[in-house]
Amino acid sequence: TIGIEGQQIATDRAMENIPGVQYSRLSFIVTNKEFDDDSPKNIEALKKAAEGYGWKVTAEALVPDEKRDIQRAIREQIAKGCELVLTTGGTGVALRDVTPEATADVCEKMLPGFGEQMRAVSLAKVPTAILSRQTAGVLGTCLIVNLPGKPRAIRECLEAVFPAIPYCIDLIEIGRAHV
Amino acid sequence: TIGIEGQQIATDRAMENIPGVQYSRLSFIVTNKEFDDDSPKNIEALKKAAEGYGWKVTAEALVPDEKRDIQRAIREQIAKGCELVLTTGGTGVALRDVTPEATADVCEKMLPGFGEQMRAVSLAKVPTAILSRQTAGVLGTCLIVNLPGKPRAIRECLEAVFPAIPYCIDLIEIGRAHV
Amino acid sequence: TIGIEGQQIATDRAMENIPGVQYSRLSFIVTNKEFDDDSPKNIEALKKAAEGYGWKVTAEALVPDEKRDIQRAIREQIAKGCELVLTTGGTGVALRDVTPEATADVCEKMLPGFGEQMRAVSLAKVPTAILSRQTAGVLGTCLIVNLPGKPRAIRECLEAVFPAIPYCIDLIEIGRAHV
Repeated sequence: TIGIEGQQIATDRAMENIPGVQYSRLSFIVTNKEFDDDSPKNIEALKKAAEGYGWKVTAEALVPDEKRDIQRAIREQIAKGCELVLTTGGTGVALRDVTPEATADVCEKMLPGFGEQMRAVSLAKVPTAILSRQTAGVLGTCLIVNLPGKPRAIRECLEAVFPAIPYCIDLIEIGRAHV
Repeated sequence: TIGIEGQQIATDRAMENIPGVQYSRLSFIVTNKEFDDDSPKNIEALKKAAEGYGWKVTAEALVPDEKRDIQRAIREQIAKGCELVLTTGGTGVALRDVTPEATADVCEKMLPGFGEQMRAVSLAKVPTAILSRQTAGVLGTCLIVNLPGKPRAIRECLEAVFPAIPYCIDLIEIGRAHV
Repeated sequence: TIGIEGQQIATDRAMENIPGVQYSRLSFIVTNKEFDDDSPKNIEALKKAAEGYGWKVTAEALVPDEKRDIQRAIREQIAKGCELVLTTGGTGVALRDVTPEATADVCEKMLPGFGEQMRAVSLAKVPTAILSRQTAGVLGTCLIVNLPGKPRAIRECLEAVFPAIPYCIDLIEIGRAHV
């Protein structure tokens, strides 16, 4: 039902034809899961989910689990015109998991509601969801959202926050236009 | 039902007649929404809600969407003896929205539960509620709570967190008295 | 039901007999509640809860409500081999309540889901639960979790997050082993 409401918002947005607003140019950043490498499956799951939402994939990157590499990839993809960067992986509790820290350090403002909602939705299925550390933030006119590192969790979490994403990108751009 | 429990707490507090504790001296800080100015409606909605809770409005301010101006207004209203500062506006995702950052930087301690609860209550009505960035914190003996920038959302969010506010102000003051 | 699922996870973990993983060596840190001293009752409540979960208590400390003392106690107990440090007290809104700040400053990474879940569970019982500021984080291979400062709240909050704790400690250690 959240998914349906979200599609409704996306449809309304397309129908309203807000000037200067296009469907999101999307990028993926997949951190390098050398220990337990699900990268190909994760990219596949993300692509399928993105197509389902009508997003155009502009760029993608596979980077090591290092803060600087993740931040460089985010900045490069924003420079390519991406309005939405989805990361997958690196949100766990192990020492190498640094995606949320990389995201928080690079963003101008944080959106704690994304992480709260992803954990709430996952928690209804598995009690260990409180360990997930995903967050989201804004840099320039780009929304960056962390997703977890397993295909099923990627789908669940993206569905949980999707309804707010097109509206968020519109608000960022409208706000920017009036500065 | 949350509202009713909250009023119960407020009543208990008045009946217990805790020495040195009065009904909150309240102030409003409304950020300057030049782009989409709902300020008069927001002030009206806040005043009506505050009267319903029995709070006495001591001060109010209309300030630009600038961190320093918001922080100066918070400090000035605390200097006037306000125990509760409610802000409205500036909690969105646009570049000019800086009220949560201004609040976090000026506070001695943060209360993440306020933002979580406001988002949870709003999320039951609209899936884009995860974009709201409201927070709350304590500076000296004053509680500062961010509210959103639309009359209906102000009422909903204040009702969601109201039950904890009088008790919070009591705890801050009791704690301070024992330092 | 969360408790039952949690015990299931703990049992699975014991049965799987993951190499190098033992039941948690646990420590308690109780902050010095001079104003309203429930320390003996809090220690008792924590010990009983820990025994119920099959944890071995390795160390405990009673420290003042000072950030440096709390942080020194956390580091000392990690040096003794503790995999889990549970604190009780100091998570309120008064000036002297600094346990969350002490925890956040000493940790390498934060786990916001613990605080969110404890507040959500408590909020179902009392509307003032949004004032609780508990958090959790990881330092080295140790998980540090703040609990509140009243026996009933300790039990409720520990039960709310317990299901994720053994799995979290496993993930930290497995992750560390591959660095």
